[in-house]
Amino acid sequence: MPKRLAYLGPPGTFSEEAALLYDPAADLLPVPSIAAVAAAVLTGLADEGIVPIENSLEGSVSETLDLLIQESSLYIRREVVLAIHHVLVVKPGTRHTDIQVIYSHPQALGQCRRYLDTLFPKVRREPALSTVAAVEQVLTSPVPAAAIAAGRAAALYPVEVLARDIQDNPNNFTRFVALATADHPPTGDDKTSLAFTYTIDRPGLLHEALGFFASRGINLAKIESRPTKRELGRYIFLLDLQGHREEEAVKGAIADLTRQTSWLRVLGSYPRWQGVR
Amino acid sequence: MPKRLAYLGPPGTFSEEAALLYDPAADLLPVPSIAAVAAAVLTGLADEGIVPIENSLEGSVSETLDLLIQESSLYIRREVVLAIHHVLVVKPGTRHTDIQVIYSHPQALGQCRRYLDTLFPKVRREPALSTVAAVEQVLTSPVPAAAIAAGRAAALYPVEVLARDIQDNPNNFTRFVALATADHPPTGDDKTSLAFTYTIDRPGLLHEALGFFASRGINLAKIESRPTKRELGRYIFLLDLQGHREEEAVKGAIADLTRQTSWLRVLGSYPRWQGVR
Repeated sequence: MPKRLAYLGPPGTFSEEAALLYDPAADLLPVPSIAAVAAAVLTGLADEGIVPIENSLEGSVSETLDLLIQESSLYIRREVVLAIHHVLVVKPGTRHTDIQVIYSHPQALGQCRRYLDTLFPKVRREPALSTVAAVEQVLTSPVPAAAIAAGRAAALYPVEVLARDIQDNPNNFTRFVALATADHPPTGDDKTSLAFTYTIDRPGLLHEALGFFASRGINLAKIESRPTKRELGRYIFLLDLQGHREEEAVKGAIADLTRQTSWLRVLGSYPRWQGVR
Repeated sequence: MPKRLAYLGPPGTFSEEAALLYDPAADLLPVPSIAAVAAAVLTGLADEGIVPIENSLEGSVSETLDLLIQESSLYIRREVVLAIHHVLVVKPGTRHTDIQVIYSHPQALGQCRRYLDTLFPKVRREPALSTVAAVEQVLTSPVPAAAIAAGRAAALYPVEVLARDIQDNPNNFTRFVALATADHPPTGDDKTSLAFTYTIDRPGLLHEALGFFASRGINLAKIESRPTKRELGRYIFLLDLQGHREEEAVKGAIADLTRQTSWLRVLGSYPRWQGVR
């Protein structure tokens, strides 16, 4: 039976591209929000759910981090790294000199700014609520229009691709995570994600916390903070480290950290993404 | 002569509220983006510029952090903490039972979700590009509509306030910073913001970095990471600490950190916000 895989829809988004990269044979279930991906997994509607967690230009996706902090029965089971390629699409037959307006999500417009400045310096840019909404606006536009979208949108909508790979920075990658009700068994090349916080505040707390890993030679891949939502200036820290929570060194560091913090949650151990970066 | 203060416009936003809270006598200059605030200060069009840097529910404003990382002649001169109060506005005379659609920025809709679920369970919610755009949509809507916006918008637009303080979480604060071409002299109760990164990667680097502050009893107020934009998994770290860069302990820690990192920038020392939180 194919895996039922929920993702942040609609079809035609980079999230759908990530879902297809993760498991081309999966039964894909588009849902309307990151919270809905979690709900689909927690209620058994889907076996796993794919959500974006970090982009190499924009940084972390706060909504996903907050979801992992809150949902104590949701775990990271896998990671998937997708190269982001933006395409410029138009209604079939539209020539690039005809284009009077270019629609896209503000982030996509920003990531293609130099391209637009160079090739479409005088064309109006209109922010849209998503790259897929931008494609729909092109199809109903009374004047010749273009949209910046994911390549996947061009495969699903009756549009023509005028240009590919129009993003300014070639180092544009998004890391997605597959969420499930359990994490992944050890494979020998794994990562572990943790979240923790303190109720007290004194100099050196976080230094001590990182010391549990440094003293065991465990490399940290990432450190991030999120607001506790109770008081400005109080944070929940998120760590990604190399190794699996069942490995002795990692197990020891987590035990020390559990004693030192007021709250800790292991968000999951999962294989490091091996795809081409 | 009043201070010329740039802020992220248009008028009617929380940024304008912050600018008025910071300096009610200032000559306010609304500009269209966070980058434009920086440009106004760097070119001398404005003396200072106010930008949001962190919200107690949503976390850091990445665009501001990236700006501070990139603009080496821009410094944090002050911080301002604004309590976020959302209001529900309508065209004058509209009753709450008439409302057929509620417009706002997705973040504002999210921050008032429980209120809307309780009082407007069947009313359609429409995302808008900003809270001010939402107010403008209410004014041109063919059906009775409402917008969630800043109190300041209600003072500037011909709308009526139906309800105040409709945000679900009372701990909703945004920290703004005033940017200038120089930071602030010591006052005895200051904060310092730093950014730094490494070209190498080995276990314990960040632990060592935090040790320079812990060993001197310097409290860290915040740690954050931003992508370097060159490679997924490489970060620039941002620290807020208690104390001024001219104080001996802070000066020593920064000197140690400068030697240990491949790049470091002091984003500024500035008085801790003393307003009611």
